[in-house]
This record gives sequence, structure tokens and C-alpha cells, in this order.
Amino acid sequence: MPKLDIAGVLIGANGKSTASEIPVNHLRVGLSAHSSLLSHLLRTLSNRVLPPPLPPPQILTLLHLLTSLDTQNHPQNIGCGEREARLASSLLLSRGGLIHGIGRSGDVNEMQPKAAGSSVICCVVKIGVKDLLQNSLKMAFLKKSTVTVLPTCTGLSILLCLLTLKKSSPPTATKVLWCRIDQKSCIKSVQSCGLTLLTVPTKKVNDTVTTDLVALSSLLAFHGSSVLCCITTTSCFAPRVPDDIVSISKILKSKNTPHLINNAYGLQSNFINDMLVQSVNKGRVDYVVSSLDKNFMVPVGGAVVFGPDKGKIKELGKMYPGRANGRVVEDLFVSLLEVGREGYEELWEYRRRLLPKFVKVFGEVAEANGERLLKTEGNDISFGMTLENFTNEECGDIGSMLFTRCLSGCRVVPTGVSKNIGGEEFRGFGSSTDDYGVCYLTAACAVGMKEREVNEFGKRLDSCLKEVVKKREKRERKKEKEKEKEKEKE
Amino acid sequence: MPKLDIAGVLIGANGKSTASEIPVNHLRVGLSAHSSLLSHLLRTLSNRVLPPPLPPPQILTLLHLLTSLDTQNHPQNIGCGEREARLASSLLLSRGGLIHGIGRSGDVNEMQPKAAGSSVICCVVKIGVKDLLQNSLKMAFLKKSTVTVLPTCTGLSILLCLLTLKKSSPPTATKVLWCRIDQKSCIKSVQSCGLTLLTVPTKKVNDTVTTDLVALSSLLAFHGSSVLCCITTTSCFAPRVPDDIVSISKILKSKNTPHLINNAYGLQSNFINDMLVQSVNKGRVDYVVSSLDKNFMVPVGGAVVFGPDKGKIKELGKMYPGRANGRVVEDLFVSLLEVGREGYEELWEYRRRLLPKFVKVFGEVAEANGERLLKTEGNDISFGMTLENFTNEECGDIGSMLFTRCLSGCRVVPTGVSKNIGGEEFRGFGSSTDDYGVCYLTAACAVGMKEREVNEFGKRLDSCLKEVVKKREKRERKKEKEKEKEKEKE
Amino acid sequence: MPKLDIAGVLIGANGKSTASEIPVNHLRVGLSAHSSLLSHLLRTLSNRVLPPPLPPPQILTLLHLLTSLDTQNHPQNIGCGEREARLASSLLLSRGGLIHGIGRSGDVNEMQPKAAGSSVICCVVKIGVKDLLQNSLKMAFLKKSTVTVLPTCTGLSILLCLLTLKKSSPPTATKVLWCRIDQKSCIKSVQSCGLTLLTVPTKKVNDTVTTDLVALSSLLAFHGSSVLCCITTTSCFAPRVPDDIVSISKILKSKNTPHLINNAYGLQSNFINDMLVQSVNKGRVDYVVSSLDKNFMVPVGGAVVFGPDKGKIKELGKMYPGRANGRVVEDLFVSLLEVGREGYEELWEYRRRLLPKFVKVFGEVAEANGERLLKTEGNDISFGMTLENFTNEECGDIGSMLFTRCLSGCRVVPTGVSKNIGGEEFRGFGSSTDDYGVCYLTAACAVGMKEREVNEFGKRLDSCLKEVVKKREKRERKKEKEKEKEKEKE
Amino acid sequence: MPKLDIAGVLIGANGKSTASEIPVNHLRVGLSAHSSLLSHLLRTLSNRVLPPPLPPPQILTLLHLLTSLDTQNHPQNIGCGEREARLASSLLLSRGGLIHGIGRSGDVNEMQPKAAGSSVICCVVKIGVKDLLQNSLKMAFLKKSTVTVLPTCTGLSILLCLLTLKKSSPPTATKVLWCRIDQKSCIKSVQSCGLTLLTVPTKKVNDTVTTDLVALSSLLAFHGSSVLCCITTTSCFAPRVPDDIVSISKILKSKNTPHLINNAYGLQSNFINDMLVQSVNKGRVDYVVSSLDKNFMVPVGGAVVFGPDKGKIKELGKMYPGRANGRVVEDLFVSLLEVGREGYEELWEYRRRLLPKFVKVFGEVAEANGERLLKTEGNDISFGMTLENFTNEECGDIGSMLFTRCLSGCRVVPTGVSKNIGGEEFRGFGSSTDDYGVCYLTAACAVGMKEREVNEFGKRLDSCLKEVVKKREKRERKKEKEKEKEKEKE
Repeated sequence: MPKLDIAGVLIGANGKSTASEIPVNHLRVGLSAHSSLLSHLLRTLSNRVLPPPLPPPQILTLLHLLTSLDTQNHPQNIGCGEREARLASSLLLSRGGLIHGIGRSGDVNEMQPKAAGSSVICCVVKIGVKDLLQNSLKMAFLKKSTVTVLPTCTGLSILLCLLTLKKSSPPTATKVLWCRIDQKSCIKSVQSCGLTLLTVPTKKVNDTVTTDLVALSSLLAFHGSSVLCCITTTSCFAPRVPDDIVSISKILKSKNTPHLINNAYGLQSNFINDMLVQSVNKGRVDYVVSSLDKNFMVPVGGAVVFGPDKGKIKELGKMYPGRANGRVVEDLFVSLLEVGREGYEELWEYRRRLLPKFVKVFGEVAEANGERLLKTEGNDISFGMTLENFTNEECGDIGSMLFTRCLSGCRVVPTGVSKNIGGEEFRGFGSSTDDYGVCYLTAACAVGMKEREVNEFGKRLDSCLKEVVKKREKRERKKEKEKEKEKEKE
Repeated sequence: MPKLDIAGVLIGANGKSTASEIPVNHLRVGLSAHSSLLSHLLRTLSNRVLPPPLPPPQILTLLHLLTSLDTQNHPQNIGCGEREARLASSLLLSRGGLIHGIGRSGDVNEMQPKAAGSSVICCVVKIGVKDLLQNSLKMAFLKKSTVTVLPTCTGLSILLCLLTLKKSSPPTATKVLWCRIDQKSCIKSVQSCGLTLLTVPTKKVNDTVTTDLVALSSLLAFHGSSVLCCITTTSCFAPRVPDDIVSISKILKSKNTPHLINNAYGLQSNFINDMLVQSVNKGRVDYVVSSLDKNFMVPVGGAVVFGPDKGKIKELGKMYPGRANGRVVEDLFVSLLEVGREGYEELWEYRRRLLPKFVKVFGEVAEANGERLLKTEGNDISFGMTLENFTNEECGDIGSMLFTRCLSGCRVVPTGVSKNIGGEEFRGFGSSTDDYGVCYLTAACAVGMKEREVNEFGKRLDSCLKEVVKKREKRERKKEKEKEKEKEKE
Repeated sequence: MPKLDIAGVLIGANGKSTASEIPVNHLRVGLSAHSSLLSHLLRTLSNRVLPPPLPPPQILTLLHLLTSLDTQNHPQNIGCGEREARLASSLLLSRGGLIHGIGRSGDVNEMQPKAAGSSVICCVVKIGVKDLLQNSLKMAFLKKSTVTVLPTCTGLSILLCLLTLKKSSPPTATKVLWCRIDQKSCIKSVQSCGLTLLTVPTKKVNDTVTTDLVALSSLLAFHGSSVLCCITTTSCFAPRVPDDIVSISKILKSKNTPHLINNAYGLQSNFINDMLVQSVNKGRVDYVVSSLDKNFMVPVGGAVVFGPDKGKIKELGKMYPGRANGRVVEDLFVSLLEVGREGYEELWEYRRRLLPKFVKVFGEVAEANGERLLKTEGNDISFGMTLENFTNEECGDIGSMLFTRCLSGCRVVPTGVSKNIGGEEFRGFGSSTDDYGVCYLTAACAVGMKEREVNEFGKRLDSCLKEVVKKREKRERKKEKEKEKEKEKE
Repeated sequence: MPKLDIAGVLIGANGKSTASEIPVNHLRVGLSAHSSLLSHLLRTLSNRVLPPPLPPPQILTLLHLLTSLDTQNHPQNIGCGEREARLASSLLLSRGGLIHGIGRSGDVNEMQPKAAGSSVICCVVKIGVKDLLQNSLKMAFLKKSTVTVLPTCTGLSILLCLLTLKKSSPPTATKVLWCRIDQKSCIKSVQSCGLTLLTVPTKKVNDTVTTDLVALSSLLAFHGSSVLCCITTTSCFAPRVPDDIVSISKILKSKNTPHLINNAYGLQSNFINDMLVQSVNKGRVDYVVSSLDKNFMVPVGGAVVFGPDKGKIKELGKMYPGRANGRVVEDLFVSLLEVGREGYEELWEYRRRLLPKFVKVFGEVAEANGERLLKTEGNDISFGMTLENFTNEECGDIGSMLFTRCLSGCRVVPTGVSKNIGGEEFRGFGSSTDDYGVCYLTAACAVGMKEREVNEFGKRLDSCLKEVVKKREKRERKKEKEKEKEKEKE
């Protein structure tokens, strides 16, 4: 087949329009739009940087152009294998996209021979995410390393990291030192691997809940070489604050113990990003796992894993045994091209600028209801207010009232709750410490929140708290009346 | 800007992959898919034939590739005009398509400088429709002529034809000889133009209603040069049968009177297509107007106009003063590429093969209810059955029952109805004749109907008729009982 | 079939989840989202106001929910008519939308029995456009009137208005008084109707080109009752300024002559809107025709027609003989719901605030190149700068250079051009006056233009003008050298 | 908020249209379409069966209707958590779908409180897949069990099964008995878990490669309780044939050893399905893992896991630590609703009917090139032909020639290849046995292949083989000539 391009199709070798009715100068301007689009792609692939934002129709054009290179879309293709990316549904066929998935049986990061276009899309995605981390978020250590984009949630990605670490460790290393953070996924990741969870206790310092570094050191000393790695957490619900990963990574470096950082939604915080960089520079960091949806505002279900050691990151890709669904990569591709570096920087910056307002509104509601904001410096994403004037039962009511009033994501944490997760017992579950002493409510100012939402959050929370008080007063008045009635009877 | 193509972007001049991680042989196979797609387009434009069907993802690729050539999608474009095809809605932006519309202020068929890609799509559509008409439907006269695709319904297209004829006729030619066919749009077209409607009466021959050619000739003789043109109809509801356009076109040729054929859904009938060819060969035909949706199964709202005289067809395009919405062309583009010549031939052929079954099922229902099918030879799309055993009121009930039972498109025509349309009075409206004498019900076997639907049509129609009879019997029993009661009282 | 709603499907009469694994409280919150969406629709339909903006996924839900009411989407529907909105292409089927089109054979504004959902969408669109005109753009006279949304361009809409006027006028009224504006569509509209164009000349007042009201009055007096109507224009390319429609409408009122206003992109200008209101209040206005795409940023190809007399607007709908394509309505529906009243007000307001910047940038480029901005007060959308220092040939070069440099929409108008349109000769075509005396270049600051674009417009225009000068100088130097050489030879 | 439904919105309590211009009877017919759609959903959820196929527009309506119940689509929702399913890209927002993903931190099968609509979609998918397996594929044992749909490839799903088994087994059970099948993913699954791979050797019986049951038994006896489980394979490349899982499951039952069946694309083969049922009935089966894309023709990247023990299947879901991407479920939902039970049965049946033709065509090509088809009874999906007359190098050429000629999925297996996978050495890799003795080429007749493709496969393969021979002959002729030349020189 002769090599053809769209310019060659529309304008013949004689310089004339193939469709004689269309003036050549119209076509030239149109073709320059196409060249311009392609030069975006060329620069992306050769300079390994995220291109400036593209208009949506051009992104679609690129997406279709690239996926049309996959074998199943080749008009002449005959599929003779057991997996040919055929679709039974005309609706799915009409939607296009990365049908052949990504990766190859041995490695989810390998190029798929049947899907050259999907491979290009995978490259662009990795280039884009690395560019954002390295240049927008100042992680200079990535210059010599790489990133892995996994179509699995943070938890399963941590599990794959643990399995990767396990593979290169002595068989006796079966324990995971885990700085307590009351969130199921991470615990599950360790348990699912069949590894032993060693919980590093937290301590309460004023309002703040933070990892007890002394306990961590002694646990590390005690368990020695049976420790596979230590998992720390940077992004967490208040009053838990980000782990002091700089100190911990130094300790781990000195003990030659691998360090896995659960950085789920930490990329949106410069405070955390700075700590990451310092940890890498001064201590030991093996894997940092961040959620794609929480930081880049894409659909739920992907993660990016990175670290200073290129070899370890590549090794991780080999742990996903087989080809994965292409949606996570496709959605990230679309988002990166539409939003661009500048756009993501603006989104993160907007959150930072919104923070004082959020804290102010939240604090005012607390005060207006006789409560106060918890002082949890270090955590600049999640915040909490006390619910001291409410009973545990009322706290429960507040939780469900907020949910039905469409204030999604607030958490009410009562006192004295115990929870068993996979055989492990956690006292005071929810607060990341055995006894926080007071009920509280958390809310987050996460990337994507709008100023309008902050105001509305304040209003609804306030009216909800007031309603609970009113109900209580009504109940009490009723009780008193009944008492009086009884007295009268007597 | 240097000329770029996707092959050049992905594989450098040194023969190596721009993204080094992707093996060049993967890319080569992928790029051959792209070349193959482009060669489809090249052949279409240079050989002026409809390409073989393409897989949906490739059609989307082509659609996006082409519309990305339009100026509003050019990443560098700065719009300094009053109309720059900007979109306020992100939903529309995400959908793509022909935003700049088609045509230019003077001519809906002219190429739009700001939309080179849309222009290519317009060309493909005209090539495709002409190929289907000329080669699949054997209209050889198109070899030296052309077609015009209008984004207007059949009625408005007829109106534009009338205005075009008016423009080149003496100012005294203000009357339109119209072979009666009881359908509002066509009448409206004439009236909207401010022209005088001269209705050619029909006559009933056995079951058939057909234009009275003698009346036509004498009207033509009487009104002479004041006649702007004659409108005939080929596709119509039974018991009206297609006009004998061969004879009429001969008469009109002899009288030098323009001939406009309302061929709304006639393209699906070979019988009608043959008559069209003969009319062109032996008589006078100026414009044939056919519906796009009814014949090509696209969304409602477009028409194709053709005829043996290229100049007249081109003249018509110039009557649409301005740029038109691009959707009709876009949808036709997608349909032509997906279905292809072979596909359309199969769709029309399927209808032809389904016809005997349809007639059988319909006839059986008629017989089972003491009625009979109308013998309306010549009309091979719409069929009718008598409703002799039903009162006019019951006929009305049948109509609405069928509608609420999801049998859409059946028409029940009662007797003795008069209707005034734009000042014109039509007796026996619905049957195309003053007094057809009997109530009847029509149903059509049109392209796209499935065998399964024919069976279901029979069942529902039968049960509906039986229900009306039952209700009547119930009513009658009730009445009798009441009579008996009264008698008893006496 | 029993009446079913989604709430009843998901939660049984016993208050339990139909799918037992889903907690009822999850469903309740979800269903409240659906109720909230439906209440938007309810308020829209019953209060007849545009709802506040909806998130895109909810708009899609509403669009799909409504179009699923159309018969062709009914799972039980059997199509027995000649037009059943069947689609041959799976790609189109997957896209959904208003397949059955809008309107009915007699009236494009009538409800289509086979497409109840499409009818609801049509209602919402008319409610929304009317709300915007009446309340955002302060056209109080619409309170007692209505609007018609036509799926035809401005030009064809004007044609339909002319035909409507013609219908209710004496047959002798065959002339259209047209205030000269050099744009093809409007001229074509008149000519396509077979009406006689009476051009009202313009006069040049300083830089400004404006209708000669004295000439208008005397033409009106001279032609008397043979004048069907007068067409004025509000939005136009500089140096032409909007017609003084207030004065003209008073004159027309006094002469009892219909008044049609070509207000293509005038809705974005409050200056023009104010004039419209005053014209209606103080004079005679029959039809105002505005482009949908130019004012509401939707795809090209629709128009809204309005005026103070409800009957006349309704009459117009009856002139479109048949059902029209639904895309224009569908796209408008999506845009109105996504952008909302507030959003459109912001878009128009943004343009207004951008104006001074645009004028400044444009003026600076003019000055920097020894030219000046034309003073065309009254036109606050299109602006012009002189090209006095350039030859006519160079002006032509500038035009095509701007086009190939992706500055779309700039117009360079040379002097001394004559153009024949449909037999009518126009001297000085482009400038709306016989001899404007100087070449000039226009650019528009239309709704949707961004500040970034204004800056880029300035830069490119400047560099383009400088390049032409450089070329000229190079040419001249070359010539001089040649002269010198020749001299030397001598 | 008052409970609202679309019927209540469009038709008021007074029985009148909310939008007075729309006749109530139009609305009633439209609303019956909606009720009909909802009754599909109701039956699906309450009867737990796959509904009959729905037209694509109705599927889209259902998809949008359900996902609009997710909190992020609620017009009133304020997100105060760290994960609120916000999207940065307008393109993704316009696409809709399951943005919130599926599952909850503890269990990928749990319902997500923020995404009630997604939960309903998950239920429908599980109901549909189970219905297909239980009723279309006759797996009666599912009546009392369940299925788990995982958004992970077959390999990662096997890994999760292994981890689940590991969790409930004694810590000493660290070895996996694996019936050799030369495919990387499965090996990787075991190695990634950190488990020891015990390869059960195959034996060659005539052309067939099959598991050595004697070896399996003795390995099992030797390793005893240190065996975690045995992995067998049913669908595989010829000349490997499906494992005799009935016998193996009996052995495993007697030894109380868990049994995991890698049934990647086995669901399309009734022979394999029968074996599965018998294995469950007569022996021990813990997990059967099948690919979604290979059996149900959806995009790559999902798996269904099932077995007779409901508890074990549910336990598996709990191993995925966190919420997963929703695309796999969404695509399956769309496919199940569009294709339906009948549709899938037809697709699988089509493959069965195509088999003899495929074998005939393949055999003829073999014979025409002096080769023969391998006799590999038991494998009715993949087939092989010898390449005895070709050198190992030529075999390599054949492989890449087929790939570049768009015959995707053919595998050429040379002799004498060794491969090291994760430290494990495999002789004769590709053929699943140490020394198969002859080069061969495989091709599969998998679900979705069309008759047209079979013919084209034959033609291209034949021409390719002939070309290799021609090249060889050319080379040889050249050599001979050179020899002759040299002789002449001497």
C-alpha cells in the first residue's frame, strides 16, 4: 500500500484539489490545522513534555486518529487469535477508545503489538504525568527515574508494590510496619498479601494525631529483618496529620528498610510534596502511590506510582500479570491534553487560595454552635470540628442528615467505636488513635471544590446542627411537660 | 509550518520510533490501517464513487479528521468575524461535527472557506447519493447531471424548486397544476409561495384512486402560459396510486410546461424508479424531490433534488440564501460510509422481498374480520383494507387504539370528511378523492420494516378490530337487556 | 401497562430495595438527584422560565429521557407508516437525539404525535429563548407575544417572513424596500421570493455609512402600496452602522408599511436591543430575525424570529411546509440548559467589557502602521481601520495573508469593486456605499471572543501589515538596483 | 423534596399537559415507552434474569438515568470529601458513565453509598452474567452460588484468587501445582504472589500435548500439605489440549487440595463447559476464572470468577482493596442489554457452526503446502498446522509476514526455544512441552470471527507460505548460479 497522508489525499501531486469543487487555498488552511495538531504530538513524544491544552474537538481527533491504528480497527484486519478486541455491542463500537487494553501478558507497561495507537497514548500519558510531577510539583528526582500508571486503585497498587518488594526480599521478611491510619484499603492491602500487619501506634499531641516515632523505632529494632517495609501516609483525615516522612525515611534508610508512602491525595498539597522531595533526598523512599482520580480529577480507579529508583518502578509494572483495561489511560490522556500543565497548576493553586476561606467558614459554623475547629497543623486538606455538645447518638444523626442533604464526604466520628478488620482490632476506629476523647466531624477542601460550594457547605452544616439542637430541645420540652403532668397527677 | 503527517510524527526520518519504547514494526502495521482508511477517501473523491462500508470507529476517525480541518478547530485560529462557530456548550463542543454549517451566503452548495473539512464531507455526500441514484437505482440520466442535498424537508424543498422555476419564468406564470394527493405539505408549498393551486381531480377506478389525465390536459390547455409547472406525486397512501408520470411528462413536454415530481419516499420502489427514468427519457422532468430520511434511513429533515438538467439543479442551490445547518449532511455522511452501496441495496431488496408477506398478513387480517384488502396495483409501498363493517365513529376508535398500542403510522380514513387548507376546500380529505365511498385503513411496508414487525402488525391489528366488535356487541347486549327490562316493566 | 417510575422500580411498595444488596438509604439519596432534575423540568414547563444551569451529565440524562419517549424508541413500537424514524447507521442510533424531527406537515411549530419527547424539548427551547429575550434582553413586548425558532439560516428565515407577509398582502405589493447592506443573503432572500428589490441608498457621514432616510421616505412615497415591506439591518460590518430603526419604524408606521428587521447578530448589543424595544413601542415592527449561532453560540443554521404581534409570529411557523430536522432545537436545548440565563448574560457582558480593549489594540495597530481606526459610532460589534498606504493589490494580499495566518473573519474591502447579484449591480460592493473612497479592513469583537484572542489579533495583524511593507520595499530596492544596472549599462 | 416522576412532570394531577401545547394523548404514548423501559429494569432486578435486548437509544437512556443517581451528578450536591468524582475534563464530563467507580474500600463488590446508580448497574451486570452462565451455558451449580465480576485481567484475577486461597490456608501451603501451559500471565500470577511454582509436565500423545496425570499425582503426593492449590487450564493454544479437569478435580477432591481453573476463553466452548459442570459435580473446583473480553466481546480488561461455593466467591471480592474503575462494568452492562441472552447464544452458536469450515480451509492450506493439520482433538478453539518444510528462520519470517499482512493473532512456534520467566526455565517454550519436535503455526476460530474472515485467512496464509518458498527458491537459484560461476572460474 502506498504511503498516504490526508494532505496527499486532498491535494494531488499537481497541486490541485482532488475534489475539484473545493478551492485549494481552503484546503491549505484546513491542513495547517491538522499539521498544527500533529506538531503537538510530535513535540510531546520527542521532547517528552506535556503539550499546551488542546481544544476538545482536536483531542477527539487525536484520540480517534491514534486508536484507528489499533489492529481491530484496520479495515483489512483478519483476527485469528483468541483475543481480537471484537465488540458485540454497536454502542461500544460507536464509542471508540482503547479496546485492546494496555500492556502485554508479562508487563502492563509493555507495548501491545496489536495496538500501536494505544501504545502511543500510553506513552503520552506517562510523559504527561511525569512532566506534571517533575516540573509542576518540583520532584526533581524523577529526572532520572520514571512513573508507572496503574489501572488499579490506590489499595491494589499498594498491594502490587508490596508483592514487588516481597519478591526481592528474603522469605523471612513478612511483616509490614504500618503507621496507623484508619482507612480500610491500606490495611486490606497488607492482609490480602498474607503479610503480617505491625501497627505503629499514634499519639495525640494537643488536637493532633500523629505517628509515635519512638514506637516506630523500637518496633523496627525489635522485628529487625523480618520487616518487609514500612508504610507511611501523607494524606489523611484530620485530626490525623501527615506522617513526618522526612524523619521516618531517615530512620528507614539507616535501618535499610524499604519505605512505601501512601500518598493517596497528597499531590495537591505542596507541603506534602516538599516533604516527599526531602524524604527522597535525605532518607529512603521506595514507592510513592498516589490516586489518579483524587489528584488529577479523572474517573475513580487508577494510580500513579513513582520513586527515585527507576528499576524498582519498572519492576512494579511486571507484577500486573496481563493486559489491563485501557479506560484509565484513555481518560487520563483526554484530561491531560484538555487541561494541560498550566490548567492543572491553576486547579491546584485555586484549592490553595480557597483554603483560608474554607477554614474561616468551617470555623464560623463551629463557633456559632458552641464548638471549635480542631488545630491540626500539617494537614492542609482535611479539617475537623468538635461535636462536644452532642451525644454519640446525635452525632450519628448528624452524619446521616448531612448525607441526605447532599453534603457528601463529611465524616462524623463518634467516640468509643471498635472495629475488627481482617482479625485486627482497632479501638477508637475512625480517629486513628485508641481514644481521641471527643466526637468530631471532618470535611475536606480538596482539589475541584468551588468557592460557591464552601459557602453552601457552611450554610447546610450550620442548619443541620441547629436542627439537631432544636429536636433535642423539643424532646426535652416534651419530657418536662410529661413530668409536670405526672407531678400534677400526683 | 512544516508539512506533517502522522507517519512522520511517529517514525522519524531515521526510521526510528519517535517514542523509543514503541517498536517500529508495531507502528508500521498501525500506520497501514491509517493509509488504508485514507485510500478509501482518495478513491471516493477521485473516482467519485461511494466507498465500500467502513467499520464505525474508522468512520468516526474520518469524521473527526475532516472536521478538525475547519477553522474553529484550528488550535491557532483567532476569530475576528461575526460568525466563528464558537460554542457556548461544552457538551456540544465534545460532540464535534460540522459546526460551521454548509454553504455560503449565496449558495448552500458552495464551499465554505472557513470549513474545508466540512466541504470535503459535503462532496463525499453528494458523490455517495449520486452514486446510489445513478448506479444502484439505475438513473443513467444522472451521468451528465448532478444532485442537490438540501437540509430542508421535502415540502420546503418543493417550495424552493417552485421559487427557482418562478425566477426563470414569465411573471404571468403563477398557477401550479397539482395532481390531487391529500397530504398537507405539498399544498402548503404552493400556497406559501403565493402561487395559485389548480387541483387536478382524481378518479376512482375500481379500488384505485388515480389522476384524471383528461382533466389534466384540459386544465393545461385552459390555463396555458399562466401555468408555472405541474406537480405530480409518485409515493402516496393507498388507495391513491403513483401518478402515471410517464404519460404526464410526455404531455408536459409537448406543452413545454415544467414538471416537478414529489417523489418523497419513492426511491425505495423500483417500479417508481423505472417510471422516473422513462419520464426523463420520453418526457419532461425538471425536478424530482425525494426525502432523505424516508429512503436512506437518516434523521428527519433533509431532501435530495435531482433531474436531468444540471443547470437547473445547480440553480436550485442558489435559492437557499445563506449557510445551512450541517447535521443533515453529517448524518448522511456517516450513514453512507457505514451502510455503503451494497448495504443500501440490501435494505431496499429486503423490503421488496418482505412485500408478499406483508400483503399476505394484512390480507388475512382483513378476511378474518369480514373485510378485504383494497386492490391498488401500482402502489407497492402503501396498502389499504376496507372497514365496511365499522361505523365512522368506530373507525375513529380504531385509529386511536392502534396509536396507543404502539402501531404507529397506520391511518384510518373515514368517509365524508371535508378539510380546508389555506382557503382551499377538499371533500373526502384523506382519500385524495371527493368520495371514496368506504372507510378504510392503510399501512405501509416501507424500507426498514422487519419481518418480525409484519407478524406483530397482523396480530395487533386483528386483536384491535376484534375488540371493537366485542365492545359493540357488549353495547348491543346491554341495550337489548334494557329494552327487555323496559318491556318487562310494561 | 402499569404506570412505573424509577423510584417505584428501585424501592418496592414495602419500602425495601428491589435489588436487596443495595441499601435503601443509598437509593433515596440517588432518587432525590433524579427528583431534583425533574423539578427543574417541571418548573421550566409550568413557570415558563429558563432553569438554572444544569451539570452536563444531567442534561444528557434529560435529553435521553425525553427522546426515549419518541415512538421510534419505544421497545414495543411497530412502525407501519412511510416515515418511522428508523436509522440505517448504528453510529447514528448510538447518538440518540431528535430523530423524528420537529413539527408537522402543516406547521413546523406544531407538536409531532410520534415524538412526544421531542415536543417537550421544543417547548423548553421556546421557553428558554423567550425568557432570554424578554427578561435578559429586556424586550418587554414579548410578554404578550411569542417567538419562533426556525431550523433555517437567517436568510431563509427572512425569505419565509417575506412569503408570510406576501400572503396577507394585496397581490400588487411586490416590492421590497431594502436599506442597502452589502451582504448577499438578504438580497438573495428577496430575489428568491421573486420580489422586486428597491435599494434605499446609503450616505457617507464622516467615516460612517448609514441609510439615507430622506431617500427612504421618497421611495416609499413614490412606490406606495406596491411596497410589500421594508427591510432594515441592525448588525453589520463597519463602516456601515446599524439602521436608525426607531426613526424608520415610525415612518413605516405612519405609512402602514410592514417592517422586517434583519438583526442577524444584534442580540449581543444592548445598543441595538434598546433600539428594537423603542421601535416596537414607537413605530412598526413586524418581524425581527436573529441568528441563533451568532448570538447564542450554537452550531450554524438556525434563527429566532420574534415581534410584538403573536399572530404574525405563529403565522410564520405555518409557512415551513413539513417537518424539519431536529438538530437545531436539540443543540439549543443543550446549550440553554448548560449555560442558563446567568451564563448567557455573562457571555454578553464579557463581550461588552472586552470592547474597549479591542478598540485600543486595533487602534494601536492602525496607528503603528500609519493608518487610523474608522470612527463608526453606533456599531459596537464591527470596526474598521483604513488601509490608505496600501495599493488595492496589496490590500488583496493582506486579506489572503490574514486568512492563511488563521486570523479568520477579517475582511479587506478594496475600492472600486462592482458586483452583480441576481441581476442587480452594486458599485463599491462590500462597503455598502457606491464609493467609500478608501480601502479598509474590518474585524469584529463578537460574543465568544477571548481577551487572549484580542492580543493575538493585534500581533498578527501588525506583523502582517509590516510584512507587506517590507515586501514592497524589497521590490522597490530591486527595481532601483535594476534601474541602476541599466543606467550602468548605458 | 416532593417525589417526582416524569409522568407527573408532563401530565399534571388534573390530567392536563403541563406544557399546554402538547396534547395529552401524545404524552401518554410516550410515557408508555418509558414505563416499558422501566419494567425491563424491574423484571431484571426482581426476577434476576437478563432482560430481552433493548434498542440502543433505550440502553443509553437507562445508563444515563441510573448514573444520574450518583451523588456527583446531583445538582444540589456539595462535595466535602477527598474523593468526589469531580472531573477536570469537559470531554469526560460530557461522556457520563460510572465516574465514582465500583465497590468500597473493603470490597470491590460492596455497594458504593455515593453512587447508587452505579450500584444498580453492578447488580444488573452480575445478574446478567450469572444468567448467561447458569442458563445459557447450563452451569446449574450457580443456582446456589454467585459470580464476581472483576475489573482486572485474567492474570491479576488469578493472583487475587491465589491470595484468597492463601489467606484461608495454613502458612506452610506455599506451592502451586501448575499444569504447564506456555502463557506468561498465569506463571506471573503465581510468581507475583511469592508462591513457588511446581510445574506439572505435559506429555505428547500423537499430535496432542496434554498434562501428565501420573506426574501430577506423584507431585501432589510428594509435596502434600505444602501445596496451596492446583491450577489447570481449559482454553489454550493447540497442540496443547484442555486439561482433563474432570479427572484432576476428582484427584484434588480426594487429596483435599483447592482447584483453580484458568478458563480464559473457555466459555465459548460447550465441550469445556460440560467438563466444568462435571468437575464441579464429581470433584473439587474452587475458582473458575474467565476473561470477559474473550467470551463476551467487550473491551479488554475484565474477568468473571465463579465456582460452586458462594462463600469463596464473596471472599474473593474482599481481596480487591478499594474502589475500582467502573468502565468494565459499564461496558458489560451496555453489551448485555444490547445483545441479550438470545444474542449471546447466537454468537456462540455461530462460532460452533463456523468451526468445520475453519478446519476445512486451514487443512486445505496445509495440504496445498505439503503440510498437515495437527490432530488435537479436545481443543475446539485453537488449531495448528505443521511447518515441517520450513527452516526455523523461515518460520520466523512467516510470523512477521502474517502480522504485517494484517493476519493478527496467528502464532508461529519454532522448535528448540528456551525461555526464562521469573527465574523458571522453560524448554520448548510456546509449545507447552520440552520438545514438540516440529515447527507449527496456530490460528483460532474464536467467537466473533466471521465466515468472510475464514476465507480471507486461508487466502492470505496460503499466499504467504508460497511467497516464503519462492524466496527460498530464488535464493537457491542465486547460490547455484554463484557456484556455477565459481566452477567456471576454476
